[in-house]
Amino acid sequence: MDKLILVSNDDGIEAKGVHELIRSLQHLGDVVCVCPESPQSGMSMALTVNMPLRVKRLPDYHGAQMYRVSGTPVDCVKMAVDNLLPRKPDIVVSGINHGSNAAINVVYSGTMGAAFEGCAYGIPSIGFSLTSHKEDADFTPCMPVIDTLVRLVLDKGLPDGICLNVNMPANMSEYQEMRVTKGCKGRWNDRYDQYTDPAHQPFYWLAGKFINEEPENEDTDEWCLEHGIVSIVPVKLDPTYMHSEEFSWIPNKLSQ
Amino acid sequence: MDKLILVSNDDGIEAKGVHELIRSLQHLGDVVCVCPESPQSGMSMALTVNMPLRVKRLPDYHGAQMYRVSGTPVDCVKMAVDNLLPRKPDIVVSGINHGSNAAINVVYSGTMGAAFEGCAYGIPSIGFSLTSHKEDADFTPCMPVIDTLVRLVLDKGLPDGICLNVNMPANMSEYQEMRVTKGCKGRWNDRYDQYTDPAHQPFYWLAGKFINEEPENEDTDEWCLEHGIVSIVPVKLDPTYMHSEEFSWIPNKLSQ
Repeated sequence: MDKLILVSNDDGIEAKGVHELIRSLQHLGDVVCVCPESPQSGMSMALTVNMPLRVKRLPDYHGAQMYRVSGTPVDCVKMAVDNLLPRKPDIVVSGINHGSNAAINVVYSGTMGAAFEGCAYGIPSIGFSLTSHKEDADFTPCMPVIDTLVRLVLDKGLPDGICLNVNMPANMSEYQEMRVTKGCKGRWNDRYDQYTDPAHQPFYWLAGKFINEEPENEDTDEWCLEHGIVSIVPVKLDPTYMHSEEFSWIPNKLSQ
Repeated sequence: MDKLILVSNDDGIEAKGVHELIRSLQHLGDVVCVCPESPQSGMSMALTVNMPLRVKRLPDYHGAQMYRVSGTPVDCVKMAVDNLLPRKPDIVVSGINHGSNAAINVVYSGTMGAAFEGCAYGIPSIGFSLTSHKEDADFTPCMPVIDTLVRLVLDKGLPDGICLNVNMPANMSEYQEMRVTKGCKGRWNDRYDQYTDPAHQPFYWLAGKFINEEPENEDTDEWCLEHGIVSIVPVKLDPTYMHSEEFSWIPNKLSQ
């Protein structure tokens, strides 16, 4: 039986990145693409619980069935697995995101939201991102990276509850180096730019820049990306921190 | 200097749970409450990047400054820390959520989104949830649990990058038992109920129920809640899975 490949993203069904992703996967199996109808950057694992969803089938693209859903990346994966696909897919591939999802960005990323949701269903899942925000970015160098990793994951699977966050540098070389690494320590140095609307009311827009707190650490995704290396970070869906002995100061009962 | 306590939630500024939370914290320091203007259940760590935000100061409640923000729980914490508070708060307390955030629900939860965001700023952070979805749920038994845990965390702090996911059973006893535990293995057995709108177009609504895959495991949050025990799960913001040796089948270079 041919492999069944579910594709999603967070930039929406019209983004260049998802079309390039479909083209890079079409020879590996039957591709079904279920994407948000509107851009969903920064939507993390948000899901729609208090609203209905709409689904629309669009014309096929390079042999892939195309659906758009009026929700988030997580909604797309749920709708695909629960309602649209003939069986559980062999892999969920999300992206190609326009922009990096390295370091702390993995937790805000809608691209990774879709991958984590695939993981929640027990399906091997990968999110791919290119460190370029350009709408017309050149995704050609991504193709062999995606081909290699998707083939390997279809063959080897992934540990239960783990998916892959793959970030590709915009300046990739011909014989591309890749590294299994970890998310670097860092944070967003946020600020809100303030504006005044025509009715003299203030509104705010998130700005700021990412601060890498360990720029010299070679064993991080940001270091890899800065040095032209594809970073592959295995990430865990369940956030439980297992060291309960560190919390011995929490009593077993309320004091009376 | 008095402690500065930031309160947020995902049920929105009008929810009973956050008002009860403020009342349970008012004697522990200066409380500032920054909440979404509309319900944000299931919003995870979603943040608003492509839209402006509005902020409105509301009348104080039990001595707490009250703000509503036209965004997600993560937006509320960012706006508070970056723009509204006089200094970094000593603690972020999110909730009290109307409904459980145990097991896999932690990753979809907007209540925990706010707590994780506090954690991303390096602020000790706790999310509190009550396993009752009733709008008029009785939060009185939550008060001593919250008082005890917030005092302890203000005193002891939390490990870097770790926050607490606290779930309280609706049927709590007088001398309440609490346990530091882990998220249970389980998944949502989702389905989409299909309807037809007045224009004869289909729409879908997420339904389904949670399947506990280890109901006999006493060392899980779901077991605690089913047995009337408050579950306290330490959770990690950074999802990196550190066992890179499990991925030795990933090559360092693309095959040529």
